[in-house]
Amino acid sequence: MNFIQHLLEISKCIWDKIMILMGYKRSPTTNIEEELSKRDEHPMKAFGWAARDHSGVLFPFKFSRRAIGDEDVRFKVLYSGICHSDLHFIKNELGVSQYPLVPGHEIVGVVTEVGSNVQKFMVGDKVGVGCLVDACHSCDNCADNLENYCPRLVLTYNSTYYDGTITYGGFSDTMVADEHFVVLMPDSLPLAASAPLLCAGITVYSPLKYFGLDKPGIHVGVVGLGGLGHVAVKFAKAFGAKVTVISTSSHKKNDAIDHLGADSFLFSRDQEQMKAAMGTMDGIIDTIPAIHPLQPLIGLLKSHSILVLLGLPDKPLELPVFPLLLGRKIVAGSYIGNLKETQEMINFAANHNITADIEVITMDYVNTAMKRLAKGDVKYRFVIDVGNTLNAA
Amino acid sequence: MNFIQHLLEISKCIWDKIMILMGYKRSPTTNIEEELSKRDEHPMKAFGWAARDHSGVLFPFKFSRRAIGDEDVRFKVLYSGICHSDLHFIKNELGVSQYPLVPGHEIVGVVTEVGSNVQKFMVGDKVGVGCLVDACHSCDNCADNLENYCPRLVLTYNSTYYDGTITYGGFSDTMVADEHFVVLMPDSLPLAASAPLLCAGITVYSPLKYFGLDKPGIHVGVVGLGGLGHVAVKFAKAFGAKVTVISTSSHKKNDAIDHLGADSFLFSRDQEQMKAAMGTMDGIIDTIPAIHPLQPLIGLLKSHSILVLLGLPDKPLELPVFPLLLGRKIVAGSYIGNLKETQEMINFAANHNITADIEVITMDYVNTAMKRLAKGDVKYRFVIDVGNTLNAA
Repeated sequence: MNFIQHLLEISKCIWDKIMILMGYKRSPTTNIEEELSKRDEHPMKAFGWAARDHSGVLFPFKFSRRAIGDEDVRFKVLYSGICHSDLHFIKNELGVSQYPLVPGHEIVGVVTEVGSNVQKFMVGDKVGVGCLVDACHSCDNCADNLENYCPRLVLTYNSTYYDGTITYGGFSDTMVADEHFVVLMPDSLPLAASAPLLCAGITVYSPLKYFGLDKPGIHVGVVGLGGLGHVAVKFAKAFGAKVTVISTSSHKKNDAIDHLGADSFLFSRDQEQMKAAMGTMDGIIDTIPAIHPLQPLIGLLKSHSILVLLGLPDKPLELPVFPLLLGRKIVAGSYIGNLKETQEMINFAANHNITADIEVITMDYVNTAMKRLAKGDVKYRFVIDVGNTLNAA
Repeated sequence: MNFIQHLLEISKCIWDKIMILMGYKRSPTTNIEEELSKRDEHPMKAFGWAARDHSGVLFPFKFSRRAIGDEDVRFKVLYSGICHSDLHFIKNELGVSQYPLVPGHEIVGVVTEVGSNVQKFMVGDKVGVGCLVDACHSCDNCADNLENYCPRLVLTYNSTYYDGTITYGGFSDTMVADEHFVVLMPDSLPLAASAPLLCAGITVYSPLKYFGLDKPGIHVGVVGLGGLGHVAVKFAKAFGAKVTVISTSSHKKNDAIDHLGADSFLFSRDQEQMKAAMGTMDGIIDTIPAIHPLQPLIGLLKSHSILVLLGLPDKPLELPVFPLLLGRKIVAGSYIGNLKETQEMINFAANHNITADIEVITMDYVNTAMKRLAKGDVKYRFVIDVGNTLNAA
């Protein structure tokens, strides 16, 4: 248990911690025999970039993908976003990585083959895959189309698929997935900039909808202006909300208001600003994945309003009960989103011209990008142009 | 601030802490001149039992009540419940008591006089008053009939009324209150045993209704089997729920199941029992007013379910974020209830024969009762027969 606690402490991102807490135990190294065995594990050749050890350096990697089943869709990967968790996994910072490890869970591409029972997709369709590629299909959550809350969900990489093999992510030429876990990308949506919507986008869209924070005219706070926060501002604005960004970084004010369209900005270290805004918000989306005080945020809420936690801190947070009771306020959690609402989110994004702010890179820039990401030097997401640059790399 | 923290630490009950945190500052002593002045402060003579100092001993006390305004109802007090907070106040354990202090906020009686504009009541009606006797009538919460969340609500005793005088509670022969804060007690409801519904009853009924835990067939957990918990079991059963009592006192099992009608009992110190019940509950009503771990309770919830906190611990609780996120679970607070739903609750109780389990005492037994209450020696509420025993005392 101390080891797990240690892992949780050094981990910075929800994806990492979920993997740890789901009890994944992987070999931290690989060898040439193991690596070569991946080429013939499945019938379909595949090529990507993988980490081979905890150095965190990605190399070209030949492996294989399964033949499509009746409900499967195969697609050529065009773009793959880089999430901070990819960095943790390639470096085995959590001790749960199994090498070779192909990262990427914000993946868009074009369909090249469909199974005989596939209903939703045709060859040539633009599609996307996010954080999960399968679930048990039999639990209550699966029955309610809430696959993301299935206790046996299969994550897009470094997870064990139902055939017993390890999943590989989107830093690769092809992907295959059950059509249920694939979404259709409308032609009007720029593919590269919409890739991060499949993780960051749905993670904020789902709670905004589920907890009723999608009503025009309401006042929504967004805590933290990173990958999640910047798309939360865009979705909340598109729903018609008044949006206030709450941040410990005062220098983000201009970007929040002038560029992202937030209505106001609260520098949360300024007690006077926070005091003046008390009791003004109908809901808050909190994207901070670290220990932080909830009391000031709960104070910003009107009575009967909600604070939604999306980030996973290393330790429990302090919950002040008094303001919760006297205002009948609510603190809730939310995790990614289900496939039905992921498609809905993508369609909504297309209709409202919502994409992530990205920096497109080539496949062979990925190791440099990882170094920059480690320093927070990206606004707000790297996206790899896999389709045009993987094979040439 | 240290002083306030100290008060909060020694306090055991929500009522106490609310008084402290609302910033009440009172003289801790009284004198004969002050006491005599209370007899003529208002035009209507009144008689009750009051604490005069922190000895906590109650004595007969002559004071006065205001003449009824156009919207006021005056009633002869018949029964008054004893809440644990009364004990704290008479002993000035919180340092906020102003003597003479007349306790009691679970009050039932019979109407003796009504103001010219009173619509709901006639002389002879049986009525009740709970924790609050007025509010600002102008804030958003008041506009929404949520007076209990009004930031300027006036509590039934030891609170400053809008005319600047101090409120006195139900250990007295008469009460006067704006009809908005008075509820009609149906003839079918036994008056003595329904008095505690006006505090304990509404405190559990309101969140059961508001958070959707009033649906037949759902599984509701009730944490803590005291004044609040025992009526929570009764209401939840009347709504048609399957009810499980969760307690650190294993000896309460028989009472919970055989007497109160709970379907099952979880001894929360038994890890195996708790583990076996994980993920089975649609909602939990948590009545514990002390520091306690939330993780096991959140673990008992199904996905997308709610834990409602009703007790106010001395310090913040630890909020485990991981299970909150992965199950989209909710932690909320709730505080008493509004007047509309208090009337609804009383009517519901009458229709379903719900009352508190009480021990009726005479007025002159009150000091003995307070000593027993301090030791937890009551199942589950003392109720003073004020109507028959006050004047004789």
